[in-house]
Amino acid sequence: MKLGRFSYKNNEQYGVLINKTKILSLSVISPYYRRLIPKRLEDMILQNHKTIKKVENMLSGIKKDNEEAVYDLTEIKFLPPITHPPKIVCLGLNYYDHAAEAKAEVPDEPVIFMKPSTTLTGSNQPIVKPKFVKQLDYEGELVIVIGKKGKNIPLEKAEDYIFGYTIMNDVSARDIQFKDKQWTRGKSFDTFAPLGPYITTANQIGNLNNLRIKTWVNGELRQDSSTKNMVFNVFQIVHHLSKVMTLEPCDIIATGTPAGVGTFMKPPKFLQVGDEVKIEIENIGILVNKVVE
Amino acid sequence: MKLGRFSYKNNEQYGVLINKTKILSLSVISPYYRRLIPKRLEDMILQNHKTIKKVENMLSGIKKDNEEAVYDLTEIKFLPPITHPPKIVCLGLNYYDHAAEAKAEVPDEPVIFMKPSTTLTGSNQPIVKPKFVKQLDYEGELVIVIGKKGKNIPLEKAEDYIFGYTIMNDVSARDIQFKDKQWTRGKSFDTFAPLGPYITTANQIGNLNNLRIKTWVNGELRQDSSTKNMVFNVFQIVHHLSKVMTLEPCDIIATGTPAGVGTFMKPPKFLQVGDEVKIEIENIGILVNKVVE
Repeated sequence: MKLGRFSYKNNEQYGVLINKTKILSLSVISPYYRRLIPKRLEDMILQNHKTIKKVENMLSGIKKDNEEAVYDLTEIKFLPPITHPPKIVCLGLNYYDHAAEAKAEVPDEPVIFMKPSTTLTGSNQPIVKPKFVKQLDYEGELVIVIGKKGKNIPLEKAEDYIFGYTIMNDVSARDIQFKDKQWTRGKSFDTFAPLGPYITTANQIGNLNNLRIKTWVNGELRQDSSTKNMVFNVFQIVHHLSKVMTLEPCDIIATGTPAGVGTFMKPPKFLQVGDEVKIEIENIGILVNKVVE
Repeated sequence: MKLGRFSYKNNEQYGVLINKTKILSLSVISPYYRRLIPKRLEDMILQNHKTIKKVENMLSGIKKDNEEAVYDLTEIKFLPPITHPPKIVCLGLNYYDHAAEAKAEVPDEPVIFMKPSTTLTGSNQPIVKPKFVKQLDYEGELVIVIGKKGKNIPLEKAEDYIFGYTIMNDVSARDIQFKDKQWTRGKSFDTFAPLGPYITTANQIGNLNNLRIKTWVNGELRQDSSTKNMVFNVFQIVHHLSKVMTLEPCDIIATGTPAGVGTFMKPPKFLQVGDEVKIEIENIGILVNKVVE
């Protein structure tokens, strides 16, 4: 299933996408299905992904014409699916095609940085460009949502620790990122991590080794790659990171961006106020955000 | 006052240091002083530092021989004063003496990286060295604890956003830090951020422009500097960071380390299993941790 967080009439809820235009609020129906459907998305993640199949079966039996609980997507405001992850870890140089365009060596272990949770925003929400940022750029990325606490996770067990997948735009102020050399500051501005719109649960993601990932700016296709070009696949990432830090439920891991970012175009094309960035990953959905000042 | 978090008979509490050997549990007395003394340290921070003076006055009137609420420091296990900060932001190259030993240029804006909250541990707790880390190092640092939410904080208002100060050992695997070039991974291992033992509230910290900071390894003095050698002082740090990200109550900002780290000694001296690192900052206290494998 695809789970999203949203506000409806200023009331924060989470729900499951039931077709291309409608979402069923699990917050609204949760009191009637206490055992399987918790009030908060975080609690569903904590239940561990093993209950997902049961929840899906139960939902398939629920009548979807309940007006109290079903909203049209045009009526809701998307929030990031997770608002206060324990950590947001991001990989650099994790696609062969991107490492090539950056003229950078492919790392033999994942190179990471972090973003604060204050960078998070939802789909259709603005990316706020500070006036002094001159080289604003996008990075479409597949995101792992951790479902279970773990340290030193063996590669063959990594799958058990993943609740699902979503999309992040790892927005970057290239002028600051390259000036500092450390990437953190240029990627840590408020709204620099649009996330969502949905978490696709791990059982529904399909072939993780070949998910199409595309990014458009104002309709122009800029990134068009596949997770098959990843240096470390999602299971290897979970395995390697867990050798460093304890992974916790609701942790977010952005797995790096493929080729086609603005800074490496010839000549470079940076985001301007008014531009719309659209990222699509197969089996997840489309994350759209406009740049404002 | 100096506030610490600890466990006593496996029961997590927070309290105020009443003399060199004893701590008064505010968790225990909070039910009798509901208005001013909340049950959790986080809530005292949220109350904003303006109530601090009132709490201090009230505490001075409380009898300190209450056996139920006063513990000897030898009876408690220190925890990090804040266990789940919204973010841990760290500055690099923020002391003139350290930038000089690193042969690095002094930055004209703060260079930052982040550590996950899973790095936190308390005073007297072990620093766990993974077997594959060969170049383990210490960094004694003054830490700002944020007390109030803010964005774009003017320099002259920065003081209002600081709840207090504590000490961090920014433990670093130099082999990984320098291999990755991005500093994050080498500084993100579990237990690589001993924090505490106390938060000294801002009103008691004294002269922020000249706090002595010292680090010993097995009794040998390695770092001996002062906050007067900082490139950006604490108010400038809050001002600059808040131009990037919204600062939130309980955020932790480690303000960089002075000269004397192991990696720049000639020859370099890295931490070994069994070594004890002791960091003292004037008007805060002493943070001690031993390295284990």
